[in-house]
Amino acid sequence: MENKLEKLVALCKRRGFVFPNSEIYGGLSGTWTYGHYGAELLHNIKQLWWQSFVSSRDDMLHIADSSIMPESVWAASGHLENFTDPLDGGKFNTMVKTSLGAKNGETVSAYFRPELAQGMFVNFKNIIDSMHPSLPFGIAQIGRAYRNEIAPREFLFRVREFDLMEFEYFVRERDWEKYFEMWRKEMWIWIEEIGLDKDKVHELEVSESDRAHYSKRTIDFEYDFSFGRKELYGLAYRTDFDLKNHMEKSGVDMNYLDSETNKKFLPHVIEPTFGAGRTFLAVLDSAYTEDELGDEPRVYLKLAPKLAPIKAAVFPLLKNKPELVSRAREVYNNLKTMSYVLGPIQWDDNGNIGKR
Amino acid sequence: MENKLEKLVALCKRRGFVFPNSEIYGGLSGTWTYGHYGAELLHNIKQLWWQSFVSSRDDMLHIADSSIMPESVWAASGHLENFTDPLDGGKFNTMVKTSLGAKNGETVSAYFRPELAQGMFVNFKNIIDSMHPSLPFGIAQIGRAYRNEIAPREFLFRVREFDLMEFEYFVRERDWEKYFEMWRKEMWIWIEEIGLDKDKVHELEVSESDRAHYSKRTIDFEYDFSFGRKELYGLAYRTDFDLKNHMEKSGVDMNYLDSETNKKFLPHVIEPTFGAGRTFLAVLDSAYTEDELGDEPRVYLKLAPKLAPIKAAVFPLLKNKPELVSRAREVYNNLKTMSYVLGPIQWDDNGNIGKR
Repeated sequence: MENKLEKLVALCKRRGFVFPNSEIYGGLSGTWTYGHYGAELLHNIKQLWWQSFVSSRDDMLHIADSSIMPESVWAASGHLENFTDPLDGGKFNTMVKTSLGAKNGETVSAYFRPELAQGMFVNFKNIIDSMHPSLPFGIAQIGRAYRNEIAPREFLFRVREFDLMEFEYFVRERDWEKYFEMWRKEMWIWIEEIGLDKDKVHELEVSESDRAHYSKRTIDFEYDFSFGRKELYGLAYRTDFDLKNHMEKSGVDMNYLDSETNKKFLPHVIEPTFGAGRTFLAVLDSAYTEDELGDEPRVYLKLAPKLAPIKAAVFPLLKNKPELVSRAREVYNNLKTMSYVLGPIQWDDNGNIGKR
Repeated sequence: MENKLEKLVALCKRRGFVFPNSEIYGGLSGTWTYGHYGAELLHNIKQLWWQSFVSSRDDMLHIADSSIMPESVWAASGHLENFTDPLDGGKFNTMVKTSLGAKNGETVSAYFRPELAQGMFVNFKNIIDSMHPSLPFGIAQIGRAYRNEIAPREFLFRVREFDLMEFEYFVRERDWEKYFEMWRKEMWIWIEEIGLDKDKVHELEVSESDRAHYSKRTIDFEYDFSFGRKELYGLAYRTDFDLKNHMEKSGVDMNYLDSETNKKFLPHVIEPTFGAGRTFLAVLDSAYTEDELGDEPRVYLKLAPKLAPIKAAVFPLLKNKPELVSRAREVYNNLKTMSYVLGPIQWDDNGNIGKR
C-alpha cells in the first residue's frame, strides 16, 4: 500500500500545490516549487504568523536581511568551524558557499545563511541606534535560508532551500524564564490557530548534552508526521552568547543603554524558530482526509479557514445556459469586490455537473 | 556639497530604513539589510504590487519557486553561455554559482537565478496540467534573485541580491500587440499609484540591435534618479522563444491545448518586470524633501499613504503626566485594534515636546 507521504506528494503535484523544482530537467534534489495553491497556502501561513507574532504586538521590530553574508560573520558565529567542508577547515558541509566579485580576477568567499538569527545579531547595533527600542523587544524576519543537505528527504521536511519565520526576543537576564514561558504558551496558541491536532504535537526538553553550545535551555516542538515524530519548531534561550561573541570579534560595542538607569549591558535572548515549509507539510499532513461520498471514495484537505488558499468559489451549474452563467458571474463579481477582506475568490466553470 | 544619493544613504541608515549588510564586519559590497521602516516599506511595495497585478485579477496564477536551479535550466536558457565565468565556458560572470551535495564526495553545480522568468517557463507544464487556465493568463511571482555584479554601485540600484516582482503573461500570438499595450498602460497606473512623478519616468523603445535575442519588442521604463536616468522597469514581448526552447531541450511537450478548438500550440509571452529594490529607491528619491519649519531646516519623506511604513502615530504630549499618557494610550489602543485595516500604528513617547 502506498504510504501517506507518497500520497501527499502526488496530491500536491496533481492539485497544483508543490512540484519538483525544474522537473522537466530531472529536478534538483531537496528543492521544490510551490504551485498556485501551494504558494497561496504558504503565503497565508507567513501572513498569519506575521500577524500573530509581529504586527499585532507593540514590542516587535522588523528587518529584511541579505541571505548572503560575508565569511567573517560565520567565522565569528562558529558556523565556519562546525558546518563547512573539511577542505575549508570545517567538520562537515551544510553551508552553501559561493564566490563573489571578479574585478581583476580577485574573488571573495561568502556563504548563504543556514538560519536567520545571525542577521538579527550583526545588525543589532544599527537597529537600536535607529529605533531606540525599550526592553523587552523582538527583532523578527521571514526569509529564505539554505543548507547543503547531503541527503534531502521526506518531501518538504529536509530540504536545501526553505523559508524561516523567526525572531530574537531581547530581555534582561533576570527575566529570561518569564519570557521563555510566555513564548512557549504563544507557540501553543499558534499551533492551535493553524489547525494542527494538539495531541500530535509534543514538547521535547533538550538535554544539556544535546543542546547547542550557546543555549541554556531548548525545547523542541515535535510533530507526529506520517513518517515519524520530527522537529517542527524550536524555542531556545541563547543567553547573551551571540551579542557577546560578535562584540568581541568585531570590536563594536553591542551594549544596550538603559535610558532609565543609564546602565549599559548585553541583553539576553529568547528565540522561537518556525520553518514555513515544515508548517506547510504539517498542515497538509493534518488536513489530508480520505472518505466516501455516496459510493465514491474522495480525497480532500480539511484546512483551517485562515489558511485555506481559496475562501469561496462560484460554480455555474450549467456552462451553456447564459442566464445561469451571468447570474453566477454577478455573485462572483460581488464577492470579488470584497476579496480585499475575504481573500481569494475563485470562479470555476470546469468539470461536470455532479462535481459541482 | 553632499549629493542627494549620499544624503539618502545616510538618512536610510539613521532612520532605520537600510543598513549595509554585516556592517560590523566591514560589509559585503552590493548587499543590504532593510531595517524596520525599510522592511515595512519594501513589504508595502510588494503587497501593493501583488494586489494591483495579481490578486485583484481573474487571470493570474501564483508560484513560489526555488532560487537555486540546476545547470541544465541555464544551459537551455542560454544563460550559461552568456553570463558565466570564462573558466566555465561563458563570456563574463554575472551568475552566482554553488556546488551541492557531497555524499561520497560527488558534487553538482547549480546556479542562483538572476531573473524569475525561467521558473515560470520550466514549471509551465505542471502549472497548466494542475490548473487548466484559459488564455490569456499570467503566472506571477515575487522572489529573490542574485547577480554576481563585478561593480555594485548606486546604493540599491546595482546590487548582488534583490527581489523581483514579475509575471509572464501568456497570449495567442495574434493578440500580442493588444496585451503589450494593455500592460504598458497598467504599468503607468502603477507608477502613479506609488507616487512617482510621471515627468521623471520615460519610455525607451529598445532598438532591435539592443534587444535581447528572444525579444521582438522591448520598452524600458526609465526613471530620472538623482544620479542619472536609469532603467526602472522593463516590458518585453518574448514571443514563444522560451517555451519552444525548453520544449526542444527537455523533450517535454509544452504545448497548450485549446479546449474549444482542440488545437495545440505554444502561447506567446508578454513580460513586465519590476525590481522591488529599484522601486524602493525611486520612491525614496522622489519622496525625499528638504524644507524649513520656522527657522529649522528639516528633512522628511513625502510617501504615498499606501506605501508609508506607519499609517498613524500617537505621541503623548508629556511623558510624566499619567493622565495624558493614559488618555493617549487609550487612543493608541483603539487605533491598534483597527490596524488589520489601517496598517501599522506607532506609539512614541520619546523626544522633546517641540518635536511632538
